[in-house]
Amino acid sequence: MLWSAEEFRQRLTRAGRAVAEQGWAALLVTPGSDLRYLTGYRATPSERLTCLVVPAAGEVTLVVPRLERPAAEASPAGDLGLRLVDHPDGDDAVRLVADALPATVGVFGVADTMPAAHLLPLQGLLLGSQWQPAGQALGALRAVKSADEVAALAAAGAAIDEVHRRMPRWLRAGRTELEVAADIATAIRDVGHASADFVIVASGPGAASPHHDSGDRTIQRGDPVVVDIGGTMPDGYCSDCTRTYVVGPTAPDGFRDYYAVLHAAQRAAVAAAAPGVPAEAVDAAAREPIAAAGFAAEFLHRTGHGIGLDTHEEPYIVAGNAEPLRAGMAFSVEPGIYLSGRHGARIEDIVVCTTDGPRRLNTTGTALVHV
Amino acid sequence: MLWSAEEFRQRLTRAGRAVAEQGWAALLVTPGSDLRYLTGYRATPSERLTCLVVPAAGEVTLVVPRLERPAAEASPAGDLGLRLVDHPDGDDAVRLVADALPATVGVFGVADTMPAAHLLPLQGLLLGSQWQPAGQALGALRAVKSADEVAALAAAGAAIDEVHRRMPRWLRAGRTELEVAADIATAIRDVGHASADFVIVASGPGAASPHHDSGDRTIQRGDPVVVDIGGTMPDGYCSDCTRTYVVGPTAPDGFRDYYAVLHAAQRAAVAAAAPGVPAEAVDAAAREPIAAAGFAAEFLHRTGHGIGLDTHEEPYIVAGNAEPLRAGMAFSVEPGIYLSGRHGARIEDIVVCTTDGPRRLNTTGTALVHV
Repeated sequence: MLWSAEEFRQRLTRAGRAVAEQGWAALLVTPGSDLRYLTGYRATPSERLTCLVVPAAGEVTLVVPRLERPAAEASPAGDLGLRLVDHPDGDDAVRLVADALPATVGVFGVADTMPAAHLLPLQGLLLGSQWQPAGQALGALRAVKSADEVAALAAAGAAIDEVHRRMPRWLRAGRTELEVAADIATAIRDVGHASADFVIVASGPGAASPHHDSGDRTIQRGDPVVVDIGGTMPDGYCSDCTRTYVVGPTAPDGFRDYYAVLHAAQRAAVAAAAPGVPAEAVDAAAREPIAAAGFAAEFLHRTGHGIGLDTHEEPYIVAGNAEPLRAGMAFSVEPGIYLSGRHGARIEDIVVCTTDGPRRLNTTGTALVHV
Repeated sequence: MLWSAEEFRQRLTRAGRAVAEQGWAALLVTPGSDLRYLTGYRATPSERLTCLVVPAAGEVTLVVPRLERPAAEASPAGDLGLRLVDHPDGDDAVRLVADALPATVGVFGVADTMPAAHLLPLQGLLLGSQWQPAGQALGALRAVKSADEVAALAAAGAAIDEVHRRMPRWLRAGRTELEVAADIATAIRDVGHASADFVIVASGPGAASPHHDSGDRTIQRGDPVVVDIGGTMPDGYCSDCTRTYVVGPTAPDGFRDYYAVLHAAQRAAVAAAAPGVPAEAVDAAAREPIAAAGFAAEFLHRTGHGIGLDTHEEPYIVAGNAEPLRAGMAFSVEPGIYLSGRHGARIEDIVVCTTDGPRRLNTTGTALVHV
């Protein structure tokens, strides 16, 4: 077990403090990374209600489906002294959550991922209450990683780097994107991930679509290919790394020029990551050189996102996010340039903000690689 | 492409009709199987808002993140004549959804899986509106499968059956549950699934936990082992099949007796599945013989769930669900008996309700198998 019961107890204590600071009567957390972070219980989201109730003060309750009670008890959550309440199929589980609340009218924080099928019945039962997404408050707790969490993310980064190192084995003219993607997915698991979460192989014109769905296009000589891949390690921590390749010795006209702009922009943004720097300043550090080169409109998205138990979490590296970075925050730095209908490029590393400067968790080179 | 644009247009038309019947101003659908069912667009749930707006009458709108616009256009949704609206990172995407609504105050249906992080801001913007989960209305559309969908589920069923047939290769005394589970997960993909969604290998006392997490317990001679496995095929349709094995020639005292009860109960419930029969009658057909044998409290869960693009969907085979089954509905029939701290058993087949009688999509035998 990676984390001790003591670690989860401390996290629950911090969550309770956040509940008090937000002025919430309680925090409600359904299955997902927030629940796993707070209790170690890796419940599967489902139509059956599982819900952790964290009041500002007092006992924490975990409501679970009866058939999952043994699994909850066997999980780290079973060692935390939580009050465990179960419901058989067909019963009114929402009522059990209401019973666990310190008040039936109040302001409640709910996990960002709580599905409408659970939230709406809760709202219907607790009329007159107010409901606020807990993402920012929980995100602030989760965004600053402990040394053990950084080590877990570094292991995930090393694993995905190994997959990129093997890319020349698979990425060749004459193969389809899906064929290459299948080989990559197998490798993501082979290097130690529990699951391959996404495999974007975006070739030629597809490389201009940041979230391209790998398809049956046959890769051609001279294609730029954006390969954005990641998975989840057995301990729950995620990897995410993008490299852009060119198939064969010759890139399309103009490609090397804008790749050089992108390359410099990505390095500048990584270098800008320091404690106290606003998140949006890292975005600006990537965006300004790209805009100066005339590609402002071709950099279609924010510069990055936090990463941990979720591939996307706080902090978001985006204009408008003035929150200062803190030591221990881990996030992607992934500018891109996309020429619609032609081709595109993206470079992504996971970076940890430290008092000694930015630490890249992906260590393969970012210079253009011809395969 | 499995389904034609015409098929998606018909589904959207039926959804619009449901919106009118429910008295909703509009239906709002974020990424998940509902969105895939209605439009063919397989968007990944994320903090970035993607939302389909289906009004009772008039134009359907799809709001997407700007960086995913090319992927949305390249998906089947791109051929349906929807109005496509995109938002750059950092902009107020919820406002775009509001702008696409026929009214700013009304009753709105929302997909069951819509996360709180999107629903709460919508509620905040459209004050005075009412919000209802759309699961039942959409579930009623999705629950009755077309012939093509039944064929897709049958292919998924045949694939998972092949994995169960190979079980003797992996399930042996001296191996851990996790080792066996890893082999099974690989096989689930090898036989044609795009992903292995769950692999429950529950041995010995763990077999008494219906949603046991495969762990590092070493499997022993004489263990009953519940193996509940499933995945998603490339076309999106799911498999789900449970068999219970005994390792070696000798089962624990009493095990064969209650397995025989379970075996008969599962067959009776499958046989009860016919058009017009209330869903709860199928549950009762499984539950009564188990209760008569003295195991009422040891059958901890409902008898089954619908299956399609989701592993769990309408119709639920549970006491209290008086909805009549209809031809074309596909669902699991999976009673279980669990003796806490000792062992347990479950048998699960996917069954399609037809006018010619129940059709099992899993065709391996359900008699106890010793490995």
